[in-house]
Amino acid sequence: MTCSDQLDLFSPAQRRERVVEWQVPAPVAKVAMGLSGMDAMLGIRDGRLPPPPFAKLIGFTVGTVEPGRVVVELEPREDLENTIGLIHGATAAGLLDTAMGCAISTRLEAGQSSVTLDLKLAFLRPLSVRSGLISAEGKVIKLGRQTSYAEGFVRDGKGALAVHATATFSMIASNLT
Amino acid sequence: MTCSDQLDLFSPAQRRERVVEWQVPAPVAKVAMGLSGMDAMLGIRDGRLPPPPFAKLIGFTVGTVEPGRVVVELEPREDLENTIGLIHGATAAGLLDTAMGCAISTRLEAGQSSVTLDLKLAFLRPLSVRSGLISAEGKVIKLGRQTSYAEGFVRDGKGALAVHATATFSMIASNLT
Amino acid sequence: MTCSDQLDLFSPAQRRERVVEWQVPAPVAKVAMGLSGMDAMLGIRDGRLPPPPFAKLIGFTVGTVEPGRVVVELEPREDLENTIGLIHGATAAGLLDTAMGCAISTRLEAGQSSVTLDLKLAFLRPLSVRSGLISAEGKVIKLGRQTSYAEGFVRDGKGALAVHATATFSMIASNLT
Amino acid sequence: MTCSDQLDLFSPAQRRERVVEWQVPAPVAKVAMGLSGMDAMLGIRDGRLPPPPFAKLIGFTVGTVEPGRVVVELEPREDLENTIGLIHGATAAGLLDTAMGCAISTRLEAGQSSVTLDLKLAFLRPLSVRSGLISAEGKVIKLGRQTSYAEGFVRDGKGALAVHATATFSMIASNLT
Repeated sequence: MTCSDQLDLFSPAQRRERVVEWQVPAPVAKVAMGLSGMDAMLGIRDGRLPPPPFAKLIGFTVGTVEPGRVVVELEPREDLENTIGLIHGATAAGLLDTAMGCAISTRLEAGQSSVTLDLKLAFLRPLSVRSGLISAEGKVIKLGRQTSYAEGFVRDGKGALAVHATATFSMIASNLT
Repeated sequence: MTCSDQLDLFSPAQRRERVVEWQVPAPVAKVAMGLSGMDAMLGIRDGRLPPPPFAKLIGFTVGTVEPGRVVVELEPREDLENTIGLIHGATAAGLLDTAMGCAISTRLEAGQSSVTLDLKLAFLRPLSVRSGLISAEGKVIKLGRQTSYAEGFVRDGKGALAVHATATFSMIASNLT
Repeated sequence: MTCSDQLDLFSPAQRRERVVEWQVPAPVAKVAMGLSGMDAMLGIRDGRLPPPPFAKLIGFTVGTVEPGRVVVELEPREDLENTIGLIHGATAAGLLDTAMGCAISTRLEAGQSSVTLDLKLAFLRPLSVRSGLISAEGKVIKLGRQTSYAEGFVRDGKGALAVHATATFSMIASNLT
Repeated sequence: MTCSDQLDLFSPAQRRERVVEWQVPAPVAKVAMGLSGMDAMLGIRDGRLPPPPFAKLIGFTVGTVEPGRVVVELEPREDLENTIGLIHGATAAGLLDTAMGCAISTRLEAGQSSVTLDLKLAFLRPLSVRSGLISAEGKVIKLGRQTSYAEGFVRDGKGALAVHATATFSMIASNLT
């Protein structure tokens, strides 16, 4: 690594930027907790509720919302890349944790929610900015009173399975006041 | 949800933004592949190599770098929050996948790298913007010729364990030319 | 715990026994390695090859064998019980690891085999001696050159899902000589 | 595979057998539930309580018992072998699930118990009948009110790490009556 290499790598000509915008989440959460999970998901999908900040940061959107099944979508970008030019695995973790958690949500009433206990990902095929529209499908396998279990699939733009996941969720009931 | 609620949630006064900056990654990757994993990690930590875009997006930095052990750090921010006001679990996935993969890297020579095959996370304690400086420690458990295995720990600012992870990596040797 | 309790618990009247029989496995392995995985599986299912000792110990048998899919079956017994009167979770681990590994096998030629790298089990419903005929289905999700990935389902006698699993396998090629 | 091969493989000269003995478990469970987890574990280790049937089937015994840490031990045998002459992976699953579950138990009072929700195993080194005395150590990482988390290590007779595991347990409180 020579001095000139370093100058190149840090040069302003090689700099890229992206502006991430989101809405303050606390008031949204308060409204969402008064809705059934299905209504909250549809509210986000249809633009009546702002998505959570992390969704804006990663840049994914909600696609299909059905009872027990949610699909989120992402157009891959350079700012999601890791050191070797692939989309960082945590991107798929974010899509899948969200899609599975939201799939659980669609089966919950107002005042109920869930948090992820265990998340297991298997990376089967690398994703890159050339992967086309990436989709993550979450499906409920078992809805329980204390814990629930879901499965998830990330597919590239051609429908090839790239990441498979399973997750266990702890169910929580909040008071609404 | 009334009309006025919706106006509030989307009002410009509730809008936040953050500018994410990164350096074009392909030339960095080319330089990094000519270095041992340890030198590449030290290069990023000490500011001689730009970090990968995803590190800038999530906003973590490299702390300790030792043979077989890497710590990355994150000051939590609102744009990492999920729907219920906690730091999205994929944030920890990103820190841990990185810390564990980099821990493997520190034991690799120039031209060698690894990709994550399996990542398993256990969420033991929620993280929020009030968690203080979050650290993720990755440690090599077994370095193999075909696959390697590592363990990771995310701790909050008080040192309490928040997330535990294990990961299996597939080892790859690239030609340098 | 009084003295008389202890006498009761250890009394010969409370003793049960079972004789486990198997064939010496090394010569079987030698024959099996000369067969395609499908032929070896069919050989075991149809009684032309002795099953491996562990299958006799747990007491499961091979049911359906198709390319990429294998089902093994178990009639639950008291000697599989844990401390609290349920079938020990490792029983399902044995059925699933076998069903998934064999599903991979059905896609392999003579001289190829696989070993389990990672096994993840989610226990959704307890199994007991009253569960009826337990079945474990293994299905290939991805067959790779270096690693493969499979999914598995344990169901009780009524078809209810009791355990879900995923596993990553490392592919190995043996010389036959 | 010729006819004579088959005769060999199934010949009585190649047959092996082992007699598995256990005590009827229900009365033991009743006594054990009246004890703290630590007392129950010590009772099994010191021969005051019969071990559960599955422990006798696999053939492991309880070694060290400390608050939050339990070691179980196994002398490997041919009847634990899989098709390719290695100890079947479910053996380690059985040792680890037990060692981790018992480690949780040592921290529980009478009337409390736990069931495994999630079990994740990473196989790092094969085990065989030549591995020497196999030990499995379970350690509590987090004891919770609803769920607990533990880590486990299987080592061969020379102390080399063969299998690593983590598990999440669901905590249950039983009435004693």
